[in-house]
Amino acid sequence: MRTAFTELVGVEHPLAGFNRTPAVVAEVSRAGALGVLGATMYSPEELDEQLTWIEEQLGGRPYGVDLMVPASTTQQDLNTLVTDLRSQIPDDHRRFVDGLLEKYDIPPVSENDALDRLGRIDASLETNMDTAIVSELLDVAFSHRIALVANALGTPPPAMLERAKAQGVPVAALVGKREHAEKQLAAGVDLIVAQGTEAGGHTGNVATMVLTPEVVEIAGDVPVLAAGGIASGPQLAAALALGAAGGWAGSVWLSSHEDAASQVIKEKLLEATSSDTVVSTTRTGKSARQLRSAWTDEWQAPGAPSPLPMPLQSMLVREAWERIDVTAEKGSGPARELESFFVGQVVGSFRGLRSTAEIVQDIVEVCEARLAELGRLVEPVQR
Amino acid sequence: MRTAFTELVGVEHPLAGFNRTPAVVAEVSRAGALGVLGATMYSPEELDEQLTWIEEQLGGRPYGVDLMVPASTTQQDLNTLVTDLRSQIPDDHRRFVDGLLEKYDIPPVSENDALDRLGRIDASLETNMDTAIVSELLDVAFSHRIALVANALGTPPPAMLERAKAQGVPVAALVGKREHAEKQLAAGVDLIVAQGTEAGGHTGNVATMVLTPEVVEIAGDVPVLAAGGIASGPQLAAALALGAAGGWAGSVWLSSHEDAASQVIKEKLLEATSSDTVVSTTRTGKSARQLRSAWTDEWQAPGAPSPLPMPLQSMLVREAWERIDVTAEKGSGPARELESFFVGQVVGSFRGLRSTAEIVQDIVEVCEARLAELGRLVEPVQR
Repeated sequence: MRTAFTELVGVEHPLAGFNRTPAVVAEVSRAGALGVLGATMYSPEELDEQLTWIEEQLGGRPYGVDLMVPASTTQQDLNTLVTDLRSQIPDDHRRFVDGLLEKYDIPPVSENDALDRLGRIDASLETNMDTAIVSELLDVAFSHRIALVANALGTPPPAMLERAKAQGVPVAALVGKREHAEKQLAAGVDLIVAQGTEAGGHTGNVATMVLTPEVVEIAGDVPVLAAGGIASGPQLAAALALGAAGGWAGSVWLSSHEDAASQVIKEKLLEATSSDTVVSTTRTGKSARQLRSAWTDEWQAPGAPSPLPMPLQSMLVREAWERIDVTAEKGSGPARELESFFVGQVVGSFRGLRSTAEIVQDIVEVCEARLAELGRLVEPVQR
Repeated sequence: MRTAFTELVGVEHPLAGFNRTPAVVAEVSRAGALGVLGATMYSPEELDEQLTWIEEQLGGRPYGVDLMVPASTTQQDLNTLVTDLRSQIPDDHRRFVDGLLEKYDIPPVSENDALDRLGRIDASLETNMDTAIVSELLDVAFSHRIALVANALGTPPPAMLERAKAQGVPVAALVGKREHAEKQLAAGVDLIVAQGTEAGGHTGNVATMVLTPEVVEIAGDVPVLAAGGIASGPQLAAALALGAAGGWAGSVWLSSHEDAASQVIKEKLLEATSSDTVVSTTRTGKSARQLRSAWTDEWQAPGAPSPLPMPLQSMLVREAWERIDVTAEKGSGPARELESFFVGQVVGSFRGLRSTAEIVQDIVEVCEARLAELGRLVEPVQR
């Protein structure tokens, strides 16, 4: 299947696979789609290591990277910034989180228990507000042979766009509303990912079925990928039917062997139906779809405080989540009740863990068969 | 395009058009799709008149009817039932609605101002709880040559299913979750309408992109229509890509000349974007997607009461809405602010009013062209 997207990044299949686990990204690209590393939690040194490792697996195949680059950064000293942000977290909020940990019997984490960084969700926006660090992350990304750079958070700053243009690397931007797409197109991005409300993680209110064609309509020659609800061949075929140049899949890789999510999280995801997700601001301060759990329920109970804005909320809950993850992994029932992860409504389609390669192959083969069937629906000779 | 749906009901195009305006229903069917009359607000006599009128327009073409038949009805005297229900509406709620009408300067309606019934939303569930009336409505429907009967509210009662089966009329049911589809299939319905959260009116949380394939997966030989987000050719093509046997479109007809909505409502819909709808229980007591307006905002303001369950909420607000509709039609600005209507996220795609026939033709032609393009994506000779 050749589309404007496959031409833009040089892949075989019109599918991008977004994940924070380097092994998933490598396998997606090896299977002929475009693996995109969600790299929002890495230091520049770590990013360099991961991209180097990915390239070693790929034998020249293309892959991409997704960074969290805010439109504006601060030159303020990072320690001062973090101290200042911390002081803005109300005591009531701290007490609420402490109370939750006590109620669910979640002990502090010892040094030995510290999780592999990949096992965690860590939207450390405060680090990414530092001009020097953001600049280093971009240095690292552009020192590798990336085929796409995406910005996880709003319009990419001009410096990022200029640099990408100079190096011939296409820039992608995620949007949840037509108005956002207009801004991104005006800024000069090369690929729009139109993300519907059914997607996992940070998401808006408009569904993929509605958002995709309205973004396609204004995008002109700029290719659009549909995100949200893309986890199978029929859904990729639907994305193409809506006028997208392909699909951007995120959640489906959580059902892969390679994904770094813990066994407990994977078990909970396999048990979930499509009705078991919820949009909540309790993890990062911005609306994000995730598995509904005792955590999201507790924040909605009477008397619970309103979640704080980004980045304060993630600073408030980060340690709590490390404790929950570690305790759940050790087999604690109450910690398992709290356990959750960013995931879209496609979670209801997970039937078991498969290899990343098998997932890509299944999506592509079923999509191709479906497209052939659709073509036959309008061939008069077949009647 | 021949699908299991076109075969089931004997139409040319895999598209059903749901509307409460008989003229829209007739035009949809005349254009080769299946018009389905939303008949939840008619008395048996009115229903008989409307169906007779529709058939006169159709020259034998098929059409359908959508009734609101509760799983159980009451033999209690209707007046006693209504009096009993009225007594359950708290005074606080009445005062809130009265206060709203006063704040927005909405006078009572005089006899002369009474709106055409078609111009109103009237989910008069309390009438439909009466065994005798429901039985009469079914008598009327089955005395006409309907090609489909749908139930707007949950699983059709066994009496309705048996009667339809005896007369060879296929029964359709709307579902918003896979679990609901399981129940409907077990009850023996002939067609499932899988309605995603982006749809107007009563709706669930799961998006069409996710819901359709999961309902198709369990439906076996029973055809599935995708509803929610279906207002254009690419969206109908996407429905088919997802495995549906066609699309069920509701909102798009609000942008037709024939639809009975007032000029004010149509103007507001033409101005709206896909982000301007909201799911609210303030109209019927059940979650329903509608245009966001001062009405839905006021019910979310601090101090507003929680909406009542169905049918109490619609009994509480029905007269208020008649007053708002009449006053808005007379040109009142504040009434226009309150004005709203059930509509899906596709409202953002309305560019102007068109004839119903033109809308059907456009959807079908663009869909067919898109399907042909999709087929070519996987034809090796085209490379």
